[in-house]
Amino acid sequence: MVRSRFMQAMTTIADAGREMIAPLFGGDSQPTIDTLCRELLSQKGEALGTALAREVIDAYRTLDEDGKRAFFESLRDSYEPDPERLAHAIAAYQDDPSRDSRLALERIVTAPRQALIKAMNMAPDGTATLLDMRSDLLGFLRADPTLNVVDADFRHLFEAWFNRGFLRIERISWSTPAAILEQIIEYEAVHEIRDWADLRRRLEADRRCFAFFHPALPGEPLIFVEVALTRKLAASVQDLLHSEPADNVDTADTANFYSISNCQTGLVGISFGNFLIKQVVLELKRELPHITTFATLSPIPSLAKWVREIPADEAIAALGLSDDPATHFRTFRKAEPSSAEEADEAVRPLLMEVCARYLANVKRNGRPLDPVARFHLGNGARLERINWQGDCSPKGHQQSFCMMVNYLYDPSAIEKNHEAYTVDGRIALGKAVRTLL
Amino acid sequence: MVRSRFMQAMTTIADAGREMIAPLFGGDSQPTIDTLCRELLSQKGEALGTALAREVIDAYRTLDEDGKRAFFESLRDSYEPDPERLAHAIAAYQDDPSRDSRLALERIVTAPRQALIKAMNMAPDGTATLLDMRSDLLGFLRADPTLNVVDADFRHLFEAWFNRGFLRIERISWSTPAAILEQIIEYEAVHEIRDWADLRRRLEADRRCFAFFHPALPGEPLIFVEVALTRKLAASVQDLLHSEPADNVDTADTANFYSISNCQTGLVGISFGNFLIKQVVLELKRELPHITTFATLSPIPSLAKWVREIPADEAIAALGLSDDPATHFRTFRKAEPSSAEEADEAVRPLLMEVCARYLANVKRNGRPLDPVARFHLGNGARLERINWQGDCSPKGHQQSFCMMVNYLYDPSAIEKNHEAYTVDGRIALGKAVRTLL
Amino acid sequence: MVRSRFMQAMTTIADAGREMIAPLFGGDSQPTIDTLCRELLSQKGEALGTALAREVIDAYRTLDEDGKRAFFESLRDSYEPDPERLAHAIAAYQDDPSRDSRLALERIVTAPRQALIKAMNMAPDGTATLLDMRSDLLGFLRADPTLNVVDADFRHLFEAWFNRGFLRIERISWSTPAAILEQIIEYEAVHEIRDWADLRRRLEADRRCFAFFHPALPGEPLIFVEVALTRKLAASVQDLLHSEPADNVDTADTANFYSISNCQTGLVGISFGNFLIKQVVLELKRELPHITTFATLSPIPSLAKWVREIPADEAIAALGLSDDPATHFRTFRKAEPSSAEEADEAVRPLLMEVCARYLANVKRNGRPLDPVARFHLGNGARLERINWQGDCSPKGHQQSFCMMVNYLYDPSAIEKNHEAYTVDGRIALGKAVRTLL
Amino acid sequence: MVRSRFMQAMTTIADAGREMIAPLFGGDSQPTIDTLCRELLSQKGEALGTALAREVIDAYRTLDEDGKRAFFESLRDSYEPDPERLAHAIAAYQDDPSRDSRLALERIVTAPRQALIKAMNMAPDGTATLLDMRSDLLGFLRADPTLNVVDADFRHLFEAWFNRGFLRIERISWSTPAAILEQIIEYEAVHEIRDWADLRRRLEADRRCFAFFHPALPGEPLIFVEVALTRKLAASVQDLLHSEPADNVDTADTANFYSISNCQTGLVGISFGNFLIKQVVLELKRELPHITTFATLSPIPSLAKWVREIPADEAIAALGLSDDPATHFRTFRKAEPSSAEEADEAVRPLLMEVCARYLANVKRNGRPLDPVARFHLGNGARLERINWQGDCSPKGHQQSFCMMVNYLYDPSAIEKNHEAYTVDGRIALGKAVRTLL
Repeated sequence: MVRSRFMQAMTTIADAGREMIAPLFGGDSQPTIDTLCRELLSQKGEALGTALAREVIDAYRTLDEDGKRAFFESLRDSYEPDPERLAHAIAAYQDDPSRDSRLALERIVTAPRQALIKAMNMAPDGTATLLDMRSDLLGFLRADPTLNVVDADFRHLFEAWFNRGFLRIERISWSTPAAILEQIIEYEAVHEIRDWADLRRRLEADRRCFAFFHPALPGEPLIFVEVALTRKLAASVQDLLHSEPADNVDTADTANFYSISNCQTGLVGISFGNFLIKQVVLELKRELPHITTFATLSPIPSLAKWVREIPADEAIAALGLSDDPATHFRTFRKAEPSSAEEADEAVRPLLMEVCARYLANVKRNGRPLDPVARFHLGNGARLERINWQGDCSPKGHQQSFCMMVNYLYDPSAIEKNHEAYTVDGRIALGKAVRTLL
Repeated sequence: MVRSRFMQAMTTIADAGREMIAPLFGGDSQPTIDTLCRELLSQKGEALGTALAREVIDAYRTLDEDGKRAFFESLRDSYEPDPERLAHAIAAYQDDPSRDSRLALERIVTAPRQALIKAMNMAPDGTATLLDMRSDLLGFLRADPTLNVVDADFRHLFEAWFNRGFLRIERISWSTPAAILEQIIEYEAVHEIRDWADLRRRLEADRRCFAFFHPALPGEPLIFVEVALTRKLAASVQDLLHSEPADNVDTADTANFYSISNCQTGLVGISFGNFLIKQVVLELKRELPHITTFATLSPIPSLAKWVREIPADEAIAALGLSDDPATHFRTFRKAEPSSAEEADEAVRPLLMEVCARYLANVKRNGRPLDPVARFHLGNGARLERINWQGDCSPKGHQQSFCMMVNYLYDPSAIEKNHEAYTVDGRIALGKAVRTLL
Repeated sequence: MVRSRFMQAMTTIADAGREMIAPLFGGDSQPTIDTLCRELLSQKGEALGTALAREVIDAYRTLDEDGKRAFFESLRDSYEPDPERLAHAIAAYQDDPSRDSRLALERIVTAPRQALIKAMNMAPDGTATLLDMRSDLLGFLRADPTLNVVDADFRHLFEAWFNRGFLRIERISWSTPAAILEQIIEYEAVHEIRDWADLRRRLEADRRCFAFFHPALPGEPLIFVEVALTRKLAASVQDLLHSEPADNVDTADTANFYSISNCQTGLVGISFGNFLIKQVVLELKRELPHITTFATLSPIPSLAKWVREIPADEAIAALGLSDDPATHFRTFRKAEPSSAEEADEAVRPLLMEVCARYLANVKRNGRPLDPVARFHLGNGARLERINWQGDCSPKGHQQSFCMMVNYLYDPSAIEKNHEAYTVDGRIALGKAVRTLL
Repeated sequence: MVRSRFMQAMTTIADAGREMIAPLFGGDSQPTIDTLCRELLSQKGEALGTALAREVIDAYRTLDEDGKRAFFESLRDSYEPDPERLAHAIAAYQDDPSRDSRLALERIVTAPRQALIKAMNMAPDGTATLLDMRSDLLGFLRADPTLNVVDADFRHLFEAWFNRGFLRIERISWSTPAAILEQIIEYEAVHEIRDWADLRRRLEADRRCFAFFHPALPGEPLIFVEVALTRKLAASVQDLLHSEPADNVDTADTANFYSISNCQTGLVGISFGNFLIKQVVLELKRELPHITTFATLSPIPSLAKWVREIPADEAIAALGLSDDPATHFRTFRKAEPSSAEEADEAVRPLLMEVCARYLANVKRNGRPLDPVARFHLGNGARLERINWQGDCSPKGHQQSFCMMVNYLYDPSAIEKNHEAYTVDGRIALGKAVRTLL
C-alpha cells in the first residue's frame, strides 16, 4: 500500500509521546514484539495507550519475512482463550442455558487477539499498518492454513471498522491530489491506465470516477469505479477509452460503469462494490437528472477458458445448444481463429449465442460460473446485452473472444431481480439476450 | 444529543435511494420496525443496504416510550443465537477442542443482534441514532436488568467503533462553530458555564479547550477538557474563572486541567478521558515548550458526604487520625459551620489533614473511595496538593468544605506511578500532601 | 474593528522577517513613522518589502490621537506631486495634447501617497490596518476638511481592492464560527440583536443570513443581510423576530430582506448593498426554487421627523394632499398621539396615505428624500406596500409612526424600473400603494 | 492560461442572473461588445452589475483576431478623457494650484478606461479574462505602439490588485491537485520538466516548491520557485535533477533556489520574484531551522552570446583582462571548442575568470548586463561562486559554456548589499569570486 503522507502530524505527536515509555524498558535491549504485545494487553497498556501501541507497530515494520511468520504464529498460539475458563463457561451454560450464561460464554470464547488488534489500532497510522499486516498474513495463510484463526479476528474487526456507515464517497477528478491519482493508476485492475494522459482522459467532462474513503485512511482510496456518460448504452470499451472528450454531458442519457477496482489487499473478502455502484447511481441521478440508464460494460473473464477446456459434449449440454449451433461449436473449438477480426462474419452468431447461454445457463451451486456475472446479478442487475467486439485488446480476445456484456441496474427492479436470483436462481434477461437464447 | 446539521447532504442521497425500496412494501400499510429489522438481516438487506437501514432508523424515531421498550424487548428475545446450533457447536468443541472448533463456537455463540446493529449503522445518521438508541436503552435497563444482553452488544460494537485510533482531537476556540460551542455550554459538568460571555472567558489566549471527535459524528464532541495556563499551580477555581485574561502566555509554566466532561450519554462506560488528557499534554508541549507542569485542579466530590454520614469512630480509624485531630474532628462533626469563611482559621488545619488522609487512606477494594481520585491516580497521576478554599461556590462547600486538589501528570513518572498503583495500590504523593499526613 | 485571528501565521513569518531590517536603524532610537514611510517609498522598500511595511503598520498602532493627526497631516503635506514637474507635464500636454502626453500628465498628477498606501498594504494584516487608518482619518476629516485629499487616495485604492469581483458571499448560520457571529450581533444596525438567543432565532431553518467577505479580511464580514422566508409578504418586523421557527420552508414563497448592515467604517462610501441583495436573490432562487417573491421589509427613517418639522402648508403641498386629508393632517400635527396604538382607527387612513405620498412624491434633486427609499428604488425595486404597525418598537414609533414599507425586487423588472427612475425620476408603484395615492 | 475549474459555481449563479438583462436587448440581434461596454459604464451598469459585466466578458471570448484588435483600438480611442473638460481642469489648477484643484485634475485626467476595466472585473471569471485580455493586448502592442495607453490602464489596475498583501504562498507537493501540477510542468521556464516522473523527483522530501496564488485565481499559480535542500552549496544542476532522493533533510544546511518561473503572461512587468524568494527563505527558516545558507544555482543566459558577438578588443577592455588571459581569450574566440568536455583543463581557468569578470564588471547604465545577475544583485544577493560544468545540457553549453553561478541571500546582509548596489552600483562578491578576479 502506498503509505499516506497525512500521518505526519500524528506521528510528530507520538514521537513526543515516546518519552513516556522510555523508562519502561531500561538499558540498551530493545524489547521484542512479543514482549511489547503482552505489555500492550496488560494494565500498562491502559496507562500508556497510544505510545505503547506505536512501539508494537514500529517493531512490526522492522520484521523480515521470518520475523513476520513467527509473529503471526505467536498471535495464533498465544492469544487463544484459556481452555479451562472456556470449559468452565461451557459447563455453566449447559447447567443453566440462560441469556446471561450465553453472554458469559461469548466473552470467554472470543480470542484475546481481538483486544490486541484493537489496541494496536490506537497507534498513529495504526489502521493502515493493520491492513498491511493482514495483507502479509494472507500471504502466509496460503502456505499455512492454521493461521486462519488469526485472520478471522482481523476480518471480524475490519468488518466492524469498515462498516458502510463510516465510508465516504468522493469524486476523483483532475483536481484530486496527484498522490491519490497515482494510486488510481496503480490499482486499476480491469482496463490498465497506461500513463497520466490516459488517466486524464478518464476524468474529462464526460467521465466520472468515484471512490470510497475511510476516515482513518485519508488519501488512500478503498475502491473506485469509472463511469462513461454516453448517448445510448456503450458497446465497446476501446471506443470509451479512445474517443474524444465531449465538452458537455447534456445529451448523455446513460452512465456506463466500465471498471471497478479494489485498492487494499488487506481488505480482501470485505466487499464494497455493491454499495459503491448504488451510491454512484444516486450521486449521478442527483447531479445529472437526464441520465436515466445505469449499466455496466463488463468483461466475461471466464468464458474463453471454459470453452477451450471443457469437453465439447459437456459444453454443448451445459449451454443447451441445439443441433446446428452445436455442430458449429465443435468446428470452432477444433480451430479457433487466431484473431476475432478474421473470423468476424463466420463465427459471430455462434459466439454471441454461446456467450449468452454461458452467462444465463452455466452455473455451479445454482449461481453463474462467471464471477463478474455472479457479482452484478447478485446485486440485482439484469443481463442486458452481449457486445460483439466489445474489447478487442489482446486481453479481451484471450478472455472472451473480444465480447463484452452490459449488466443493467434499474433502481426500480433491483429488489425484484435480487429476490428472484437469491430465492430461485432466476436471472433477469434483457430483450437482446432473450433473442439470442 | 443535539443532532448534527452535517447530515443533510447524506440524507438527500438516501431520500433518492428510497425509491429503490418503495416496491418492497406494497399498499398503504407501513411495515413495523420488527419486520424492517428482519428484512435488514435477510438477503434483501444485502441488496438494498443503506435504504433499508434508513427505514429502520426512521421507524425507531417515530416510536413512543412503549414502542421503544417493546423494540428493545424484541431485540432481547428475537436475536439470541439458536440454542440447538449452539448446543451442537459446544458438542463439537468438546469432542475436538481445536482452534477451529473454538472459532466455530465463537461464531455461533455471538448474538445475531450484533449483525443487526452493524446493518443499522449503514443508514445516514446511523451512528448518531444508535447512540441515541443506547441512551434510551440505558433508561429502560435500570428498570429491567434483563435488557443487559442487548446493551452488551451495543457496547461491544461501540468499543470497536470508537477506538482511540479513530478519534480526532480538535481545539475548541472562539473560531469554533457556534453549534459546537453550544454543546460545550450544555455538557460542561464540573463548573457550569453560565452564558456565552462565561464561555468566551474560557477560550481566551490564556486558556485552552480540546475535544475528541469521531468522523461519523462531525460537529458533536465526545468529551472535552478545559485548561488554564498560569504561572505556578492554580489553587482556586474561582480565580481561574473570573480573572482577567492574560494577553499572552509566554510566562506561563503550568497547564491546569480544571474540567473534563463527557457529551454522549450513549457512550457511558466507554472511557476517553485518560486518552484525552495525555493527548492534550502532548499538544501543549508542542505548542508551548515553556509549559513544564501539567496538573489538574479537581473537586473531591465525595468528601463532605462521607464525613457527615459515616460514624465518627469509623471515620477516625479509616483516616488514621491521631489523638488531637481526632478530638477536633468529633467537635467539627457535631457543629459544622454553615460557611467555610466563618470557620477559616479554626478548622483549616483539621480539614486539610482530613482531606489528605481521606484521599490517601480511605479505600474500597484497594482503590480510593473518591471517584475523581480513582480516575487520575489510576491514570498514573500524583496526589500533589490540597487547596484550602479552592472552590467557594455552594457546590464546592457542599461537596468538600470548599477544598480542591491538584493531581500532577509528570510524563516521566506516569508509568511508575501507574504500576505502583495497580500492582500494590500505592499512591504517589507530592511533598505538600506528605507534610499533611 | 474586531481584529482577525487569522493573521497569526502571517505575523509569525513577518516576525522572522524583522531581522532583515534590524541593521537598518542602528542604536536605540526607534525611527519615527515619517522616517519609516520615506524609507518604504525609497529603493529600500523594494528590497525589504513586507518587513519595512510592517514597521510602518506597527508604528501606526502605537500612535495616540495627536500622533495620528500629525501622521495624516504629514500624509497630506509631504506626499503631493512635485509642483514643478507637474507644471512641466501640463506644459508638455498643452504643447502636444496627445494620448501619450495625457498619460504622462496622469502619472505626474497622481499623488505619491497612493504608492505609499499600496506599500503599507504589503504588511501582514496590512489591509485591515489600512481600514482602521481610514476609519480614524474620517474622524479627523470632520474637523479638518483639508484632509480630504488624503481620504481621496485611500478611497481610490479601496474601490479598486474591494471590487465586487473579489468579494465572496458566504452564508452565515449557526455553524459559523462564534468570532464571526459576534460581529453580526455587534454590527446589526436596523433591528438590534439583543443576545445569542435572539441571533439564533435569526439563523433558524426559515431564516437566511448572507455576508460578503474579502480574501484579505477573512473572518470579518463587510456587509450582511438578514432574510425571513415566509408564506406571503411580511407586514410586521415584530412578527418576524418573535415568531416560532418553522421546521421547513417548503411552503414559503417569499424572501423578506428585513435588515442590511455594514460592518466596516473604513469602507464608508464604498457601496456593496446593491450587489449583495441581488446576489442573495440568485442564491435563494437556486436553493429554493419555490421562492418567487423577493422584497424588503424596510423602515422609513425620515418620515416622522419630516412630518413634525416642516410647516404644515409646505408638507401638504409637497405631499399633494386633497382637502379632507389636509384638514386631518393639520389636526394630527397639532396633537400627535403619544402611541400609535391609541390612535389606531382614527389616524390609520391618514398616515397610510401620508406615508405613501411621502415616499412617492417628496423629493430633493428629483430623488426621494427618504434614504432607504432612495437606495432600493435606485436599485430598481418597486414601492410595493405600506404596512400599518409594521414596527411597533419605540424606534419604529419614533421614526415612522410604526409603519414599514415593502420594496419589491422583481428580477425581470429591475432594469426597466431602474431606467425609469434614473432617466425620468419615475418611481415604480405596487397596486396597494397606487390605491393609497 | 489554463482556465480554472473553480469558477463553475460562480458561473451557475451568473447564468441565473442573465435573465435580469434579457429584456435589455430586444429582438434577435446580439449587441456588439462596444455597445455592451458603453452600457456597462452607464447607470445601467450600476443596476445590473455582474450580469452585464459577464456579457462583455463572454462577447470578448467570441472575438477573432481582427475583432480583438478592433476592440483594443476602440478602448484606445473611445475611453480617453474629454479634452475640453481636461483643458478646463488644467486651467483651474493653473489659476489656483491648490491640493483640491490638483485632485480635481487627477480625476479628469484619468482615462474612463480604468472604470471600464474595473467594471469588467465584476464578472465571474472576470480577473482571469482580464489577464487573458492583457496577454492578447501585449501581442498587438508589438505591432502598434499606440495601444500603450490601453496597456497602461491594465497595468495600473493589475499593480493595485496583485499587491503583495493579497498574494498567498502555498507549498506545491505531490498532494497538490493534478490540475495545478500540470501548470507547473507547463510553465517551468529554466530547466524543463520532461514528464510526471521528473516532476515527482522535484517534489520529494529533499526538495521544495512554493508558489504565489491570488484569491481571484484559485488553482492558477502566478509564479513558482523550486528549491533543493543539500549539504553544502550545489554546484551542478544535473546533479540536482538526477540524484536519488534523500529520505530526510536533517543533515541539509543549504537551500538552493534552482528555478523560478512566471505562469501568467498577462502579468508581464509586474514582478513577484523578489517577494517570493524572500518569503520562501522565511518559510524554510521556520520549517527547517538547521538550514542556514540560502542561495541560487543560476544560469548566465547572456554570457556566451556576448563573448561570441562583441569584438575581442572591446570584450577584453570591458572585462578588464590582463595580458595573459587576454591572449588566451583571443585564441579561444577564434576556435571555440564544440563541447565543454573536450576543452576541460585547457580553458577552465580562462572561462571561470571571464565569467566572474563578465558578471562583476560588464554593465550598462551601471547595472550588470546579464538579466539574472541584475535581478538577484538588485534584490540584495551576493555574487558567491562560479561553477564549472554547472549545466552540461545543450542549453547550458550554448548559453554559458556550461557554467552556472550561485547568488547568496544572506538575510542579515540584504539591506547593506542592496544599498551599495543601488547607490554606488557596487556588487557584493563572495571569496571564491574575489579570487577569480
